[in-house]
Amino acid sequence: MVKQERVGVVGFTGYSGAELVKILQRHPRVEPVLLEHRSQSADAAPFTFDGVTRLPWSAQSLRQGGLSVVLLATPHEVSLELVPMALQAGVKVIDLSGAYRLRTVDNFRRWYKMEHPQPDLLAEAAYGLPEFCRQAIPKARLVANPGCYPTAANLALRPLVSEGILDREAGIVCDAKSGVSGAGKKPSEKTHFSSVSENFSAYAVLEHRHVPEVLLTSGLEEHELSFTAQLIPVHRGILETIYLRTAEPLSREQIEEIYRKAYAGEPFVRIYPDGKLPSLLSVAHTNYCDIGMQADPRTKRVVIVAAIDNLVKGAAGQAVQNLNLLLKLPETQGLL
Amino acid sequence: MVKQERVGVVGFTGYSGAELVKILQRHPRVEPVLLEHRSQSADAAPFTFDGVTRLPWSAQSLRQGGLSVVLLATPHEVSLELVPMALQAGVKVIDLSGAYRLRTVDNFRRWYKMEHPQPDLLAEAAYGLPEFCRQAIPKARLVANPGCYPTAANLALRPLVSEGILDREAGIVCDAKSGVSGAGKKPSEKTHFSSVSENFSAYAVLEHRHVPEVLLTSGLEEHELSFTAQLIPVHRGILETIYLRTAEPLSREQIEEIYRKAYAGEPFVRIYPDGKLPSLLSVAHTNYCDIGMQADPRTKRVVIVAAIDNLVKGAAGQAVQNLNLLLKLPETQGLL
Amino acid sequence: MVKQERVGVVGFTGYSGAELVKILQRHPRVEPVLLEHRSQSADAAPFTFDGVTRLPWSAQSLRQGGLSVVLLATPHEVSLELVPMALQAGVKVIDLSGAYRLRTVDNFRRWYKMEHPQPDLLAEAAYGLPEFCRQAIPKARLVANPGCYPTAANLALRPLVSEGILDREAGIVCDAKSGVSGAGKKPSEKTHFSSVSENFSAYAVLEHRHVPEVLLTSGLEEHELSFTAQLIPVHRGILETIYLRTAEPLSREQIEEIYRKAYAGEPFVRIYPDGKLPSLLSVAHTNYCDIGMQADPRTKRVVIVAAIDNLVKGAAGQAVQNLNLLLKLPETQGLL
Amino acid sequence: MVKQERVGVVGFTGYSGAELVKILQRHPRVEPVLLEHRSQSADAAPFTFDGVTRLPWSAQSLRQGGLSVVLLATPHEVSLELVPMALQAGVKVIDLSGAYRLRTVDNFRRWYKMEHPQPDLLAEAAYGLPEFCRQAIPKARLVANPGCYPTAANLALRPLVSEGILDREAGIVCDAKSGVSGAGKKPSEKTHFSSVSENFSAYAVLEHRHVPEVLLTSGLEEHELSFTAQLIPVHRGILETIYLRTAEPLSREQIEEIYRKAYAGEPFVRIYPDGKLPSLLSVAHTNYCDIGMQADPRTKRVVIVAAIDNLVKGAAGQAVQNLNLLLKLPETQGLL
Repeated sequence: MVKQERVGVVGFTGYSGAELVKILQRHPRVEPVLLEHRSQSADAAPFTFDGVTRLPWSAQSLRQGGLSVVLLATPHEVSLELVPMALQAGVKVIDLSGAYRLRTVDNFRRWYKMEHPQPDLLAEAAYGLPEFCRQAIPKARLVANPGCYPTAANLALRPLVSEGILDREAGIVCDAKSGVSGAGKKPSEKTHFSSVSENFSAYAVLEHRHVPEVLLTSGLEEHELSFTAQLIPVHRGILETIYLRTAEPLSREQIEEIYRKAYAGEPFVRIYPDGKLPSLLSVAHTNYCDIGMQADPRTKRVVIVAAIDNLVKGAAGQAVQNLNLLLKLPETQGLL
Repeated sequence: MVKQERVGVVGFTGYSGAELVKILQRHPRVEPVLLEHRSQSADAAPFTFDGVTRLPWSAQSLRQGGLSVVLLATPHEVSLELVPMALQAGVKVIDLSGAYRLRTVDNFRRWYKMEHPQPDLLAEAAYGLPEFCRQAIPKARLVANPGCYPTAANLALRPLVSEGILDREAGIVCDAKSGVSGAGKKPSEKTHFSSVSENFSAYAVLEHRHVPEVLLTSGLEEHELSFTAQLIPVHRGILETIYLRTAEPLSREQIEEIYRKAYAGEPFVRIYPDGKLPSLLSVAHTNYCDIGMQADPRTKRVVIVAAIDNLVKGAAGQAVQNLNLLLKLPETQGLL
Repeated sequence: MVKQERVGVVGFTGYSGAELVKILQRHPRVEPVLLEHRSQSADAAPFTFDGVTRLPWSAQSLRQGGLSVVLLATPHEVSLELVPMALQAGVKVIDLSGAYRLRTVDNFRRWYKMEHPQPDLLAEAAYGLPEFCRQAIPKARLVANPGCYPTAANLALRPLVSEGILDREAGIVCDAKSGVSGAGKKPSEKTHFSSVSENFSAYAVLEHRHVPEVLLTSGLEEHELSFTAQLIPVHRGILETIYLRTAEPLSREQIEEIYRKAYAGEPFVRIYPDGKLPSLLSVAHTNYCDIGMQADPRTKRVVIVAAIDNLVKGAAGQAVQNLNLLLKLPETQGLL
Repeated sequence: MVKQERVGVVGFTGYSGAELVKILQRHPRVEPVLLEHRSQSADAAPFTFDGVTRLPWSAQSLRQGGLSVVLLATPHEVSLELVPMALQAGVKVIDLSGAYRLRTVDNFRRWYKMEHPQPDLLAEAAYGLPEFCRQAIPKARLVANPGCYPTAANLALRPLVSEGILDREAGIVCDAKSGVSGAGKKPSEKTHFSSVSENFSAYAVLEHRHVPEVLLTSGLEEHELSFTAQLIPVHRGILETIYLRTAEPLSREQIEEIYRKAYAGEPFVRIYPDGKLPSLLSVAHTNYCDIGMQADPRTKRVVIVAAIDNLVKGAAGQAVQNLNLLLKLPETQGLL
């Protein structure tokens, strides 16, 4: 089988970017091309991505590199600079940063503490959560790949919000835990082995840049959601424990049925039966979002546990899922 | 200085028991005596507790061993057998298991799935959380040392419940995380290195034996509390993230003030200023319970983070705190 | 592309067996079939190997299951029982245990402390280290897949032994370190998270079952080799630090050249240039054996560092490499 | 009991310095005083060293602070600047850096790549390995506290060298492994959690600054020793696996006897019986050096395993041992 699509990757020295290249190397139809940009760090080890084509990031590479799509695994400041260049050269973009996720300049200003330089592109970008935006993505020039926390939170929350069964007055708690790769590759006191190992800590309580993405997609109001981000001593993985109350007493089986209906046919969402619960290892190195649940009808309390690999379904895997949609390839190609 | 009190330790091959002996070896006034009981496992390594006196567990050791107190770091089934023997020999007991914590036979039957063989002792036992039970402990023959999860939860919750500021209708969520030592030393698939490392999982959702202890001491009703116990890939430590709503808007400073007032003069509770939050490493190998907080008066949402070392303030350290109270020694002796 | 070969896997609930199935699921030409045998443990999690065909281990499955080869990821006692059954049914076998690696009954008796029940099969089995046995493997009915430690040791040692440059009188030291998965999935005190995490220990000094495999293939004599096996707190990976002296002064460049010549064209052996050294992460989840080196011509001392993923090149990946050779498929298929 | 000696600590924000303060806080006779110096980093957490006296590092503090000794847990460049200031003020110094360990300016120049500014102090300094230098230390003004690797290596090697039983022609291999704290607190790519966790790597092969310390004290010649330093994914601990050959066949029991004789009465060296071997956890948080061994008289091969806590016997604990010697206090005070 011939790899007939060439796709550029910027930021391939970071965790998400490297994961992206690894997935694409196994993809039967897509050939990755490394686009070298000044923002990247040095390659970690000999043999990294040996044999993969490299081009400089430049207008020329974009025009003559034969690239159908460019994937940006770059900080949002860098993406804001690169996206217009790519689009101008007629190359579609999937951006893994937060630069184009928040729809409005007001929202962006509030959470990223800067003016958005391209309000039109911000409004135009398709939000790349295929389970809920599968219609818009294939038509987009620019796809904003979702954040890792919001991917798990939205997949866990939206079916219950849509079904209208929540006691929204009681509020929803999302206690989220992430591995260290979510904090990026830059060395800091916070990511030093001796600060992380044998430790566990909360680092964003009641405010995190990913909160507005959860609100936009889940359908919740800001005052209804308490969100806490915490650091687990692991490299990869996100697990979110979500607490809520239903308006009427519902059994675990009834809750499970709502999820089964919502995700019937979805290739990357797995609903756990019998009150079983996912863990980080059950999704590591996969593009699955696993969802389990417990409920106590007497107190109308429900606990949902959702797990993803933050580097796969929370970043690179989801980007390839979006890429498949953009290229009209089977959505699961290269991802199972 | 002479070590004038001899104190027996049963279960010194387990994690809590070994921690107990280590703390007592440094205690200026107490000499530990290892009481060998059939329930213990083999010593792990050469030199473990070299030079510490060993006696068999027996009526004779209890009567003639010169022991003022016996500390039991044993499973609750074993404690139920040993406690009456010690009391009958006139030796006071601090029991680290759950055997005597729940006050009533009904409560015990429900959570431990067995009949309590000594209802009178169950009713008589003093609950050993010194911050709230400092009057009763010195007079007791039998002290029920609190569970690790309830120690953190009660210290975090009771000041707010007592102050009457909670919106109890909205409910309280306690998302609790514990290191592996909390699961004990017995090998199992669950505690295998390869099951724990690079993993994170929930193992008790909406029901855990420690819940009734939280309710008894915090003053909450069962339907008001959602409690989840989760396993972190670390050896020691418990961190609990607690979500609640206040009836009226309260600032972080006001919440902090409630804690400062409640714990003024307490040697082992530290209140974090300025919205700073404790982590496992900030309490590792100490008897402190560290408490930090965030609040959003607009939404009346509050998040409390409490951390302890499950083997120290959650077990052996608290037992020594109780021992000091029993022996009329300074409460912090051997613990700072 | 159609998966035209069906291959059975026994022992798919263990670490090596599960890795084998994962690799085969991605193999473009081979379809794995899970052969259920009483020796296996329960499946760890929901969804494990969903959609993969399952058959009972039986004479009937072997005869009518359409299996070209069976791969055994079973203890050597179980392999000794299953191999004759498969061969009798006309199905070739790749055995990942040590049951058929040692060639002679004397050698087997000494290291496995039992009589070998099938001396003929022991003598017949091809040793499955493709880099050195590529001729014999395709013709074999039974392939003995190498042990993890010997794979790295033999790839690191044999070129230097063959070249005749060693001062063999001075002896060779192989200081080997392995992740916990090498000890298998069975819970024990030794594999308990709290025994492994924050720890490092030697468990086999100067004698280990894998030593005879190193001697048989490397060409060294027993008295020339000191081998120590040690446990690192990681899940997967083996790193061996090998110390030796050359008869004549040789530079690092000259040593490097010997390896480059020996492994020219080998797809799964990578020689590090410029004194760079491999680490566990550089080979994790790959079938590579990475080799780096340092030398001090003044003292004629040389240090070789070799790293593999014990579950891939040390077990499942190498088994698939052997499978490709047996099935006359490209040797790297499904492994890059 | 009154703490009658005041002792200054510089570098208390680093790993060794913080460990030093913790040990001194428990010391019955010594009161630590934090000497604040521009080279230190910010305090990690609230409550760190609450209640411990702080003074600025200055000539005045040295003269009027009532300090009998100053302990420097600083980089060697900083120690070279501070040591003369303290000595001039009449305060004795224990320096934990490598600034004064190597005796001669030639040796220092070779391994530290700089001229030593104080050749007289370099020659004057006592090497602070109490087991071998117990006579000189109490009389010294300046004690050079040994490096972590050399502490374990010298304690393991010197008895065998002194006894004259080695086949020194065959050479000695020291395969050393250290936890991350040995690399210091400064964030770098090398100490990032995701570079260390699930990894193992060699970082100094056949040359490391600690080699000359091993040679100076053990009595070995440079060409006889191969030394490799490697990084284990743990916070604290050093384990060294040492390979050698004896001139004549010696049993394990005979080797063990040599160690027992050499360390009879030593409070901090423990010899393992029966071929048992130490591990990192057996010495963690203690000042012990544990030594175990295996021998094969047929091949005259011997393997010695030595373990220490790099932050205690390899740094802060040994410094307190030296402090006790300087202050004529019992050598083990505050360390058991």
